[in-house]
Amino acid sequence: MAGSTFGRHFTVTTWGESHGPALGAVIDGCPAGLPLSEEDIQPFLDRRKPGTSAVTTARREDDAVHILSGVFEGKTTGTPISLMINNTSQHSKDYGNIAVSYRPGHADYTYDRKYGFRDYRGGGRSSGRETAGRVAAGAIAMKILNQLGITINAYTRSIGDIEINDAAIDLAYARSSAICMPDPEAEKLALDYIAGCRAEKDSVGGCIECRMENAPAGIGEPVFDKLDAALGKALFSIGAVKAVEIGAGIKASKMRGSENNDALCMQDDQVAFKSNHAGGILGGISSGQPIIIRAYVKPTPSIYQPQDTITKEHQNTVLTIAGRHDPVIVPRAVVVVESMCALTLLDLMLSNIGARMDHLTRIYHS
Amino acid sequence: MAGSTFGRHFTVTTWGESHGPALGAVIDGCPAGLPLSEEDIQPFLDRRKPGTSAVTTARREDDAVHILSGVFEGKTTGTPISLMINNTSQHSKDYGNIAVSYRPGHADYTYDRKYGFRDYRGGGRSSGRETAGRVAAGAIAMKILNQLGITINAYTRSIGDIEINDAAIDLAYARSSAICMPDPEAEKLALDYIAGCRAEKDSVGGCIECRMENAPAGIGEPVFDKLDAALGKALFSIGAVKAVEIGAGIKASKMRGSENNDALCMQDDQVAFKSNHAGGILGGISSGQPIIIRAYVKPTPSIYQPQDTITKEHQNTVLTIAGRHDPVIVPRAVVVVESMCALTLLDLMLSNIGARMDHLTRIYHS
Amino acid sequence: MAGSTFGRHFTVTTWGESHGPALGAVIDGCPAGLPLSEEDIQPFLDRRKPGTSAVTTARREDDAVHILSGVFEGKTTGTPISLMINNTSQHSKDYGNIAVSYRPGHADYTYDRKYGFRDYRGGGRSSGRETAGRVAAGAIAMKILNQLGITINAYTRSIGDIEINDAAIDLAYARSSAICMPDPEAEKLALDYIAGCRAEKDSVGGCIECRMENAPAGIGEPVFDKLDAALGKALFSIGAVKAVEIGAGIKASKMRGSENNDALCMQDDQVAFKSNHAGGILGGISSGQPIIIRAYVKPTPSIYQPQDTITKEHQNTVLTIAGRHDPVIVPRAVVVVESMCALTLLDLMLSNIGARMDHLTRIYHS
Amino acid sequence: MAGSTFGRHFTVTTWGESHGPALGAVIDGCPAGLPLSEEDIQPFLDRRKPGTSAVTTARREDDAVHILSGVFEGKTTGTPISLMINNTSQHSKDYGNIAVSYRPGHADYTYDRKYGFRDYRGGGRSSGRETAGRVAAGAIAMKILNQLGITINAYTRSIGDIEINDAAIDLAYARSSAICMPDPEAEKLALDYIAGCRAEKDSVGGCIECRMENAPAGIGEPVFDKLDAALGKALFSIGAVKAVEIGAGIKASKMRGSENNDALCMQDDQVAFKSNHAGGILGGISSGQPIIIRAYVKPTPSIYQPQDTITKEHQNTVLTIAGRHDPVIVPRAVVVVESMCALTLLDLMLSNIGARMDHLTRIYHS
Repeated sequence: MAGSTFGRHFTVTTWGESHGPALGAVIDGCPAGLPLSEEDIQPFLDRRKPGTSAVTTARREDDAVHILSGVFEGKTTGTPISLMINNTSQHSKDYGNIAVSYRPGHADYTYDRKYGFRDYRGGGRSSGRETAGRVAAGAIAMKILNQLGITINAYTRSIGDIEINDAAIDLAYARSSAICMPDPEAEKLALDYIAGCRAEKDSVGGCIECRMENAPAGIGEPVFDKLDAALGKALFSIGAVKAVEIGAGIKASKMRGSENNDALCMQDDQVAFKSNHAGGILGGISSGQPIIIRAYVKPTPSIYQPQDTITKEHQNTVLTIAGRHDPVIVPRAVVVVESMCALTLLDLMLSNIGARMDHLTRIYHS
Repeated sequence: MAGSTFGRHFTVTTWGESHGPALGAVIDGCPAGLPLSEEDIQPFLDRRKPGTSAVTTARREDDAVHILSGVFEGKTTGTPISLMINNTSQHSKDYGNIAVSYRPGHADYTYDRKYGFRDYRGGGRSSGRETAGRVAAGAIAMKILNQLGITINAYTRSIGDIEINDAAIDLAYARSSAICMPDPEAEKLALDYIAGCRAEKDSVGGCIECRMENAPAGIGEPVFDKLDAALGKALFSIGAVKAVEIGAGIKASKMRGSENNDALCMQDDQVAFKSNHAGGILGGISSGQPIIIRAYVKPTPSIYQPQDTITKEHQNTVLTIAGRHDPVIVPRAVVVVESMCALTLLDLMLSNIGARMDHLTRIYHS
Repeated sequence: MAGSTFGRHFTVTTWGESHGPALGAVIDGCPAGLPLSEEDIQPFLDRRKPGTSAVTTARREDDAVHILSGVFEGKTTGTPISLMINNTSQHSKDYGNIAVSYRPGHADYTYDRKYGFRDYRGGGRSSGRETAGRVAAGAIAMKILNQLGITINAYTRSIGDIEINDAAIDLAYARSSAICMPDPEAEKLALDYIAGCRAEKDSVGGCIECRMENAPAGIGEPVFDKLDAALGKALFSIGAVKAVEIGAGIKASKMRGSENNDALCMQDDQVAFKSNHAGGILGGISSGQPIIIRAYVKPTPSIYQPQDTITKEHQNTVLTIAGRHDPVIVPRAVVVVESMCALTLLDLMLSNIGARMDHLTRIYHS
Repeated sequence: MAGSTFGRHFTVTTWGESHGPALGAVIDGCPAGLPLSEEDIQPFLDRRKPGTSAVTTARREDDAVHILSGVFEGKTTGTPISLMINNTSQHSKDYGNIAVSYRPGHADYTYDRKYGFRDYRGGGRSSGRETAGRVAAGAIAMKILNQLGITINAYTRSIGDIEINDAAIDLAYARSSAICMPDPEAEKLALDYIAGCRAEKDSVGGCIECRMENAPAGIGEPVFDKLDAALGKALFSIGAVKAVEIGAGIKASKMRGSENNDALCMQDDQVAFKSNHAGGILGGISSGQPIIIRAYVKPTPSIYQPQDTITKEHQNTVLTIAGRHDPVIVPRAVVVVESMCALTLLDLMLSNIGARMDHLTRIYHS
């Protein structure tokens, strides 16, 4: 496999590049009988669209999704769901200097080294636009998880050095925030900071945190396909992510064992934990606690300042990138993080249902 | 798949638990014609053995590896290589309180939730001992990479808050250090700190850094199987890893784009970069720069202090864990990190050789 | 995976059902640098279209293929190739009795049992129309194989009891034959026989033979992914195939060893074989001889005669199927067999290039 | 993957060659909670051992199986089950002429072409002895299937031209027959025929038929992973199988549709079929009828007659193979066919449990 398929049970294969006629995703393994229409998917795509606020570009992408297969009389049939999004607003342009020079921080040079040449229009397959297919697929996974009582919410945890206050987290506020920040005070500082970066023709990164609540205990496979390993892969597969933390993350490496261990206790006749440094995962398997994961995103590599680089003919040059670019991609990546978490969790939940003889018997002897 | 197989081309399937008769690994997809004997593998296993120093336990594990298949007349045949390590020193013991109570920070509770019961002897499959199979397989991957001119070196970057000085890194020193630290000064402080933890019946975590040098550009698949995604999964699949960074990692999320972008330039007629914040990976594909990755390890969950927890019958209890446990597992995990990096890089190098028509033609038309 | 993806290296994921808006395939792992346009694919799709001859239905399907991604400036980029075919001629119809009754010989009953309900329009995903995606993908595999000097040709070997004479095989004739038969005399008899079946409102099956020539020796993996096992799976995955033979096939089971063994000999300084009962495969690995495989196809299950069956409410009923149906599907399946053989052979050729250290060295040290 | 792993959910990885120290299999994905000991597996291995009768060789293989992991307190834990069989009776011998010459009908030449050299001791990995691992794994799959009420029985259908009479099938008799034939009369003729072959230093093939009864309807995935495709791959992966038929098989290709279609009807308030030409599979999915499949096995390639062949230095030569060889391998392959069918059916049953939203809800909302 050349890496365009994700998951083993609920598999998503994405296709398409920034400036082709369309892009999309094929989902195989979606359980039959799920009510589904474009209306379930479109809101997720709308969340990753560039908006009109100061922090995102003025580009307009319609991103209208079409279901081409796998749904009959309003329900999934169990066969592949093909989703397509036309690239309506990608007009042919002059890509002159990008075609011949390697943009620093982008995949231009590495694609050329891998394939011998590359589709230089808007980054081709390495464009962030590729995530539209993931988000469309993630919306379906999310609907299934929601039906099983599980919720997944991501939000901007930090922009540059500006971090939210955990006590101030308001998930509803984050959904209406132009930068998906759940803390209005931090949001204000971050917006100012981003405006400053934009004015200086520069860009900035940040951190996205994702909380999965009400996931059953027992999800994740021992050894290589641990839930944290699968989530780690999912988030690092998003371009621009340079670090991932689970639960206490790096802080855990500086704690004592007596401090980091989450003690178990009975609470109202339920199993409970006195803390959640583990981020809801022990030995790679979910514990029933909220699953907490963070992805750290680098600053947008496309900046308006002239940059030193080389041409594909190996000459030193100075490149100034035209076009429109977000000074920060963190807010648009929030729904991508949510989608990847949904795809990962559902995939491992499907993997898990064969883990016990009593499950097998329940399905085949009832 | 239930998660005991790693890789798609150079696949490793590990088996075995802490206190069974043996454990091992089966490697499928090892290229034919590689000179191989137990002597190539044993030194790697010896590096993860508990030693006799102050920082590791007094347990003795022989860890002698046996090649059971796939090698003929001193060379790999291209068929599966079965590696087995007998569990010689695991005497039957009284596991009484571990059998009935859940150890905080361990996978006891989650295994019970997943499977309905668990092998409680020494953690069973969730024991760190499972990594012996990975290290044995990793030694073979490493030999192949070395033959292609690639080196991989991991070392302890930090213990608790004590971090090495980058300017003082001495890889040869790290190999002889009881805690795999490449900076003698930091090592001394760390040894003292670990001794303090041990005296307080407590434990501590740290950070392992791994450098892959001389890897060719072009390795890694776009989208889901990016080199960083694959490495992220590989490292998070090691129990106790709670965070992973590539290159500048979290720091990248706080930099400006103008600062974080690695400018390209020509140097002695070779393509070069003026910095390596990317950690050698752009768009998920290797750039030819050194690949730098860090894994953050939580403190050993087994501590000698009494801890609050519950029994499997859901009664509150206080558990004191007997047996011998390292106050820090970071040094023993160093070779595991190296092994997982070797397995990941080789697997993606094998994946890459079908990426271009000219590769295909070179193999089939020559 | 729910079975819509074929191959591990050159992977094809098909989607779409008989009467949805479109159907298609996504190819991942196509080597970069292959010249490709719709013109390379369309002729293969045209070969599986229903024609106007006496043996095929009067339905008209345009089957115009669109490349939506993965090709730039006329060459494959190494990223996924998305192929789409609009279902232009599938007008909404009255599917009344098929919606409520199970057609004998079709998958109606088994889909209902698997999924709880089914898309009954023209068979939905179980329709032969699903093979359009395979053929489109197969055309790309075939172009690559042809560039490496390999040819694949399938033809109708028998219709009912009427079989071709091996001495009379004329591959060029088969391409122009309405029933893809390479022997004009057998073709005449078969056409008469089919006409008779049609007149009696009945249908008939037959056999498709496929010859792969000039494939390199060494293709196929030992044990489970033998070349014959992979080809067997590929052909049995075509609906209506009820038997597969390799080389001498069933006859081999009745021969003596002394007769069945293909003796090796030197011929013009080349390794040669005195016979080819093995069909070009020994121990699951190609020998360099022509690879010969046969698929036996059952008669079209849709016939115009009334048939006993049951309704989905479990009442006995008599069903008469309306619409237009071929009395024989063998000729249209010929290009599907060719396509599946091409996809299988190419996939295993890509798998094979990592089988030897010298291959690895040739790619990474040159 | 290099082809030593079978299945996606209940995965089996086999390792080992004819004359190494041991061979074995690792099963990953076995549901937890299955009572299991060596006694469940050994009888299956005993059925494939060479016996002392006239039709099998005088070699003695102990084939005692050892469970090395994955079982605790008599039950499977859900983690990998490692099975090992020591090669006790493989004494070092002189393999002189086999080492330098290619045996006709064997994989000697193709392994050399694939890997550059080969383990020539007893065929190495291409030896029939490799199937011991499959049979050991198949025994576990069979135990699970039996617990779900499913039975699988294979037997010798024909030896050379001698075929059983369907009316005379006696499965219990087959189990005691030296050649696994369920019809005493045909068995007698076959034994005579085999004795004749042996006397003439020749060998003979035959056909194995397998019946799977009481399998639930709905098993198998549409398109590429049809139940018949998966079974076809499974049987063709057994060395020496040259043809596979499902249900009516080749005969179906000669029938009319009106004759071949299996009419549905209600019988005692149950869905029933008036015939079973389909062999229990429609559209790749089980119908609930008995699943019938046949594998045709070529004559043993090792015969005592001198044979024309070439050396690995490409010289013509005449080879006489020493050692002991069965004149027919069909009887020993019967349990291999059963095992592969059990592994295939169980794997697709595990795949199927995620096919419906109501299954998911039953597991996660109860």
